[in-house]
Amino acid sequence: MSSDSPRLFVALLHFPVYNKAREIVATSLTTLNLHDLGRLTVTYGVSGCYVVTPLQRQRELAHQMIAHWTQGYGATYNPTRAEALQDMQVVEHLEAVEQAIVQRCGVAPKMIATDARPFPQCISYMALRQIIWQQCEVFLLLLGTGWGLAEEVMTRCEYILAPIYGLTPYNHLPVRVAAGIMLDRLLGHPDAEACLSPVRTSHEKGTE
Amino acid sequence: MSSDSPRLFVALLHFPVYNKAREIVATSLTTLNLHDLGRLTVTYGVSGCYVVTPLQRQRELAHQMIAHWTQGYGATYNPTRAEALQDMQVVEHLEAVEQAIVQRCGVAPKMIATDARPFPQCISYMALRQIIWQQCEVFLLLLGTGWGLAEEVMTRCEYILAPIYGLTPYNHLPVRVAAGIMLDRLLGHPDAEACLSPVRTSHEKGTE
Repeated sequence: MSSDSPRLFVALLHFPVYNKAREIVATSLTTLNLHDLGRLTVTYGVSGCYVVTPLQRQRELAHQMIAHWTQGYGATYNPTRAEALQDMQVVEHLEAVEQAIVQRCGVAPKMIATDARPFPQCISYMALRQIIWQQCEVFLLLLGTGWGLAEEVMTRCEYILAPIYGLTPYNHLPVRVAAGIMLDRLLGHPDAEACLSPVRTSHEKGTE
Repeated sequence: MSSDSPRLFVALLHFPVYNKAREIVATSLTTLNLHDLGRLTVTYGVSGCYVVTPLQRQRELAHQMIAHWTQGYGATYNPTRAEALQDMQVVEHLEAVEQAIVQRCGVAPKMIATDARPFPQCISYMALRQIIWQQCEVFLLLLGTGWGLAEEVMTRCEYILAPIYGLTPYNHLPVRVAAGIMLDRLLGHPDAEACLSPVRTSHEKGTE
């Protein structure tokens, strides 16, 4: 990735988020989401990817899974998966993400909330894209699980990104798919193929 | 969805695709991909979504899963999931998809191959978007599993869509995430929120 690219971090929050009854809960870790998010954030040259859960056993599970693919048998079986997961950090709470970014960048990140619901103060993709490509600051995109980020997180954010709409009112995308569309809208260039290096080898590619 | 929207169908192929050793195989069905693809294609108002596998037991598994969410307990537990899966078709081979589209639209679809590898004759997202929004024809976007669509499928396609690149040479996105980015690039409007109906209720949303 070019050094001119935005400094955008991503965090997947399992707490504090809502459940179906709008109670604040810690959702279960979904290891597949960690794979997908790792592959996605490396594709878009995101500065860092964090997984947040207050549940110690779930953090241990994540660490075990990451170790399998980065140091264990998985690392030789699928080196591209090691690449996707090697910089993923698993932490206890959102404040730990902010502290890690301050340590790394010397400045606190501006936080961007995401939600499938519209809020009056939502910022559009085009507007936010302009802001994050201006380079002056560090950003942290927060992805919710369950039924979305708790209000206590939303109110701490500088920006609330507009919901993703396709061509229908249906807006129930999986977080892993929504994250892909978000990063492509904020960072991607749909016809970027000409200006990038070729892929490694066709045999290294897996799409499952 | 507006009647002016493109007539684009999507098919997820489990055969004929390559495995890691570049042998042609039938890959295993991943039920999560069916959920994700259903939610995604309904979001973008895709004309129809097909899952292709020659393995009868795998088709039965898919039918059982779809029935659970559209007619069984799942339909009341999560009505939006029923909406995502109710029009998904599970068929034996690609020819069955083409026949179904001919029956429905009266014309054979122009097939669009997708792959993470670049091909000399690739068409760009912007160029293909223009073509499919011209409305005159019916299109079928083919998504591969495993290590990608077999050459015998690629050669039958009218178009081969360019690989998705982010900001790095890494191009190993999961098919479910890649499909989201593809449909958003081909059909989406990043700042469409203002012209669409509001979401149903915030309580209906799940992101897992």
